[in-house]
Amino acid sequence: MKTQAKVSILMGSDSDFDVAKSGIDTLKEFGIKVDVKVLSAHRTPIQTHEYIVNAEKEGTEVFIAFAGKAAHLAGAVAANTIRPVIGVPIKSSHLGGLEALLSTVEMPSGVPVATVAINGAKNAALLAVQMLSLKYPELDKKLKEYKENMEKTVLAKNPIMED
Amino acid sequence: MKTQAKVSILMGSDSDFDVAKSGIDTLKEFGIKVDVKVLSAHRTPIQTHEYIVNAEKEGTEVFIAFAGKAAHLAGAVAANTIRPVIGVPIKSSHLGGLEALLSTVEMPSGVPVATVAINGAKNAALLAVQMLSLKYPELDKKLKEYKENMEKTVLAKNPIMED
Amino acid sequence: MKTQAKVSILMGSDSDFDVAKSGIDTLKEFGIKVDVKVLSAHRTPIQTHEYIVNAEKEGTEVFIAFAGKAAHLAGAVAANTIRPVIGVPIKSSHLGGLEALLSTVEMPSGVPVATVAINGAKNAALLAVQMLSLKYPELDKKLKEYKENMEKTVLAKNPIMED
Amino acid sequence: MKTQAKVSILMGSDSDFDVAKSGIDTLKEFGIKVDVKVLSAHRTPIQTHEYIVNAEKEGTEVFIAFAGKAAHLAGAVAANTIRPVIGVPIKSSHLGGLEALLSTVEMPSGVPVATVAINGAKNAALLAVQMLSLKYPELDKKLKEYKENMEKTVLAKNPIMED
Amino acid sequence: MKTQAKVSILMGSDSDFDVAKSGIDTLKEFGIKVDVKVLSAHRTPIQTHEYIVNAEKEGTEVFIAFAGKAAHLAGAVAANTIRPVIGVPIKSSHLGGLEALLSTVEMPSGVPVATVAINGAKNAALLAVQMLSLKYPELDKKLKEYKENMEKTVLAKNPIMED
Amino acid sequence: MKTQAKVSILMGSDSDFDVAKSGIDTLKEFGIKVDVKVLSAHRTPIQTHEYIVNAEKEGTEVFIAFAGKAAHLAGAVAANTIRPVIGVPIKSSHLGGLEALLSTVEMPSGVPVATVAINGAKNAALLAVQMLSLKYPELDKKLKEYKENMEKTVLAKNPIMED
Amino acid sequence: MKTQAKVSILMGSDSDFDVAKSGIDTLKEFGIKVDVKVLSAHRTPIQTHEYIVNAEKEGTEVFIAFAGKAAHLAGAVAANTIRPVIGVPIKSSHLGGLEALLSTVEMPSGVPVATVAINGAKNAALLAVQMLSLKYPELDKKLKEYKENMEKTVLAKNPIMED
Amino acid sequence: MKTQAKVSILMGSDSDFDVAKSGIDTLKEFGIKVDVKVLSAHRTPIQTHEYIVNAEKEGTEVFIAFAGKAAHLAGAVAANTIRPVIGVPIKSSHLGGLEALLSTVEMPSGVPVATVAINGAKNAALLAVQMLSLKYPELDKKLKEYKENMEKTVLAKNPIMED
Repeated sequence: MKTQAKVSILMGSDSDFDVAKSGIDTLKEFGIKVDVKVLSAHRTPIQTHEYIVNAEKEGTEVFIAFAGKAAHLAGAVAANTIRPVIGVPIKSSHLGGLEALLSTVEMPSGVPVATVAINGAKNAALLAVQMLSLKYPELDKKLKEYKENMEKTVLAKNPIMED
Repeated sequence: MKTQAKVSILMGSDSDFDVAKSGIDTLKEFGIKVDVKVLSAHRTPIQTHEYIVNAEKEGTEVFIAFAGKAAHLAGAVAANTIRPVIGVPIKSSHLGGLEALLSTVEMPSGVPVATVAINGAKNAALLAVQMLSLKYPELDKKLKEYKENMEKTVLAKNPIMED
Repeated sequence: MKTQAKVSILMGSDSDFDVAKSGIDTLKEFGIKVDVKVLSAHRTPIQTHEYIVNAEKEGTEVFIAFAGKAAHLAGAVAANTIRPVIGVPIKSSHLGGLEALLSTVEMPSGVPVATVAINGAKNAALLAVQMLSLKYPELDKKLKEYKENMEKTVLAKNPIMED
Repeated sequence: MKTQAKVSILMGSDSDFDVAKSGIDTLKEFGIKVDVKVLSAHRTPIQTHEYIVNAEKEGTEVFIAFAGKAAHLAGAVAANTIRPVIGVPIKSSHLGGLEALLSTVEMPSGVPVATVAINGAKNAALLAVQMLSLKYPELDKKLKEYKENMEKTVLAKNPIMED
Repeated sequence: MKTQAKVSILMGSDSDFDVAKSGIDTLKEFGIKVDVKVLSAHRTPIQTHEYIVNAEKEGTEVFIAFAGKAAHLAGAVAANTIRPVIGVPIKSSHLGGLEALLSTVEMPSGVPVATVAINGAKNAALLAVQMLSLKYPELDKKLKEYKENMEKTVLAKNPIMED
Repeated sequence: MKTQAKVSILMGSDSDFDVAKSGIDTLKEFGIKVDVKVLSAHRTPIQTHEYIVNAEKEGTEVFIAFAGKAAHLAGAVAANTIRPVIGVPIKSSHLGGLEALLSTVEMPSGVPVATVAINGAKNAALLAVQMLSLKYPELDKKLKEYKENMEKTVLAKNPIMED
Repeated sequence: MKTQAKVSILMGSDSDFDVAKSGIDTLKEFGIKVDVKVLSAHRTPIQTHEYIVNAEKEGTEVFIAFAGKAAHLAGAVAANTIRPVIGVPIKSSHLGGLEALLSTVEMPSGVPVATVAINGAKNAALLAVQMLSLKYPELDKKLKEYKENMEKTVLAKNPIMED
Repeated sequence: MKTQAKVSILMGSDSDFDVAKSGIDTLKEFGIKVDVKVLSAHRTPIQTHEYIVNAEKEGTEVFIAFAGKAAHLAGAVAANTIRPVIGVPIKSSHLGGLEALLSTVEMPSGVPVATVAINGAKNAALLAVQMLSLKYPELDKKLKEYKENMEKTVLAKNPIMED
């Protein structure tokens, strides 16, 4: 199944790809078209801005931004679009990702970023699918299946030990 | 302007209403129909569950949950629906809301909560509108106006001091 | 020695079993019957609810819940039973378990969770035995022996160095 | 209704009484006999030790300890009894109670403290009642009523706003 | 004394002016020309970008940016100029300014922000003067006087108590 | 050189010996007599109490206590002696030692613990020597030598790189 | 009673005097001679250095340093003396004193600072008296009395409530 | 290209060299003359002071200080010079560098330290170059090239995945 839904995925550094990958894979499982870019709020501010404006025009419906440390990428996207923006804070070796979490979530009034857990790429993808399902009802069925499979996977772990 | 979009707002305690109010007002400004309930993940788990299931059936398209301390409400909603769930951590007098933020955002893989800033009711509302605008394009114009007004309000503060 | 005491142990993921195991072993040393389940507050909310209600009816006297990150499992159990619930926050690689600790311990008034240390499975088991000993006085002797053995083990480390 | 259940309440300073009071009141509502003492792990270590040993002999079934800052009181009780010990970290003006929480909950293996939320006096009392209900089944009914009243109180807040 | 040195001061919100004022006053005491603007990285991204590019062209030699919460303003300036950028994290009522500090200081490699203390407006101004003194040696004398006055002010507090 | 000075070293667990060792070695370098014991505030409270009382009587002039997690050992020593007590928080794998630091340093008024850095065994030893040097002036010379050697060691690292 | 013991008290700012006062008073109660100075590691580094060197020569036996924020004063004293240095972190309105605590206690190997609780002026004084009592045994009696009075004060709070 | 600009680099321990190296290399790429010293605020306070005073006299225009834990080195430099001082907090194994960050950045009013990210050696170097470019305009071109290369490097990562 393919919807026409389109998600733009930005990461501040190609080193974020390892984390982002499971989110991209999840979106593809749901038949969502993804456009993946390495673009930095700090190193390529102009190209980032241009990309966001063009992507919105060309039909991107949800943005997902991955960034670590003083993670401004999701906020920079949100500043330049009216589409929902999901931010994924990336774990760092210094402060464990708390700095990226706070930099992503504590946005000023008027410019929300939908923040998920540190390194939460898969949840970012699922959240995007949930948003898209409002418009593309064909995604509802897949979301329900996903939830049921998750349920089955947990239940299948039982019994975890012999009596 | 009225869309048919519907948002369900849950708060764990009526003391959260002071924070939630600006979010509710914002949704109404956008013509979104809201259903507001005081329901607790811990004190009324069964009614909370029933409400979520029914609300989804009856057309709720986005849930917003307000909760403080060990804030489980947004997660409890997300566990029981395929609709997007926005979590607003409420500030506490002990740990400043960090505990509510972490309890809301660090969700396990498979069950995302779109978390906004501590006490970020207005941003929760705007994020809901952004999600709904995917389906209800009439909201796009209002979102653009909102962004432009915000811009104007900031610019109008200048000059902030005489030379 | 076997008492009729029964403890239900829930873990949000089978990956928590490595931590939980030493608690299960401790309960068995005390002759406590354990029922161990993998059940998630977020992935299997309905089955978790059903399990808790049935377990209480069928004689579970203490619940122990293991969960990490936004650890809601212990709270979800406490919401649905009048039996004492012990929560064990699981260490994470991001925030060291602080997020799970806060999510477990900062419960709202009316729904307590008896929280032990991060990864404190053995202490969760001992706390359960202490609770059960109120009803099953035959456990008192074993608790005293346990305390004496612990004491002996510490003292036996001396002298730790030659003069 | 009066059970024979007895709870010993210790606080490190009389300034903790303001927090402790709601817990004491809750225990009395359940008909639990309480013995309340101001005793400090650091300022009166010998009397604290003597009190614990005697209290256990004279029938104390659960201990609740209130302490702030480097909160050692609950741990000091737990070191000297086989009865369950509930620790209530007290909020401080410096670090918000996080230091008391960590000092109370991060107990070494072998000596558990059942920790509740910062300033969580009422939950400490309820947890004690839950423990005691294992032995005194007459408390079950009151616990269920308490839960039902809590539920009703939350539900009675609805509707929280006019449509 | 007037140098030709010019500093641009940006604040994300006019509510930051109370903090910024002492920094502006300090710069003026040193005879530095200041240009003060309310401009937000998130609410007026395009105007902020234009301002930075123009200000650099028109001779701004140091930028100072004040911002709170997920404080991206200093980083947004640094992304668009080769001039030194000083960031002042603003205290918030939730997390005390720690979130603004981390959002300001933990910049990715290649785009430095010279971060000063939370609400450290005066130090931001002094740091700017120190930077400018490299080019405008007439500032050296004033910096030395400032240091000597500070020294005298401290010493003048003695004796602080009678013997 | 041997003084008659005597330091008692307590550690809550023999696993702390790896950290404590460098402190013990430092004390021996200064000719201080050490008495090293594994004794736990929580697992051997009575023996710990007895040891402290006896050690003070038999001439211990400074106590050093090593403990991790909810580190109560130093406080337990301080509660039972008028001699100075030095606390060394031990690093944990969960919270990095912050919990042990706060549990050691945030002592209530009236019962001080001289706290050094996390795992700061060597500094605990040097601090003890500094205290003892008040009574045993023969230690002054060694302390000065130690300081000079430290100075030389640092300076000897220069030049650290070729021009 | 007067001993010849002498303690030097330094504070980074005269605003620290409110906190320091209770420590100064405590030292005087013990008959300790105090020399109190406002001297800053950062604003009067040369005078601070001179004071420390002279004070040590003229008989200061213990230093107590009060400082907030990036609290370097105690470390600066310790760098320049072989006498024991006690550091008192001062609470700030931003980070609650945690920054001052870490800046004071996490000293590098070789240069210890005996750190007490945030705003712990009284404990700093008592710790100084304990150190001095090693040399001045006449202080032992007063320390024992102090401990006994503290004990009596706590016990006198009982009964804290009617039965 | 060689400017006459000179930067003094201080590190508290030679173990900081691994971190500092990339900053030194960056400065050299820009043709900046560096003087690198191992000097400690705590272990060699006098030599550190002398070095700073002399370096300023002999033309050092910017200081960069690397230090970990209770990182006082940058502050000690700033206390003794009117030149801008850049502080680089070094990551520790205990608290991840947060303690060094706070010790470096939270400087009292009057004595600024331009703080960069934990282990941010390269950014410290770039910040120094930006400061120096005010006086040495020949650096502007190199800074622009650096920014352009950074931009190109990011853009060259695209496409990061096949469609």
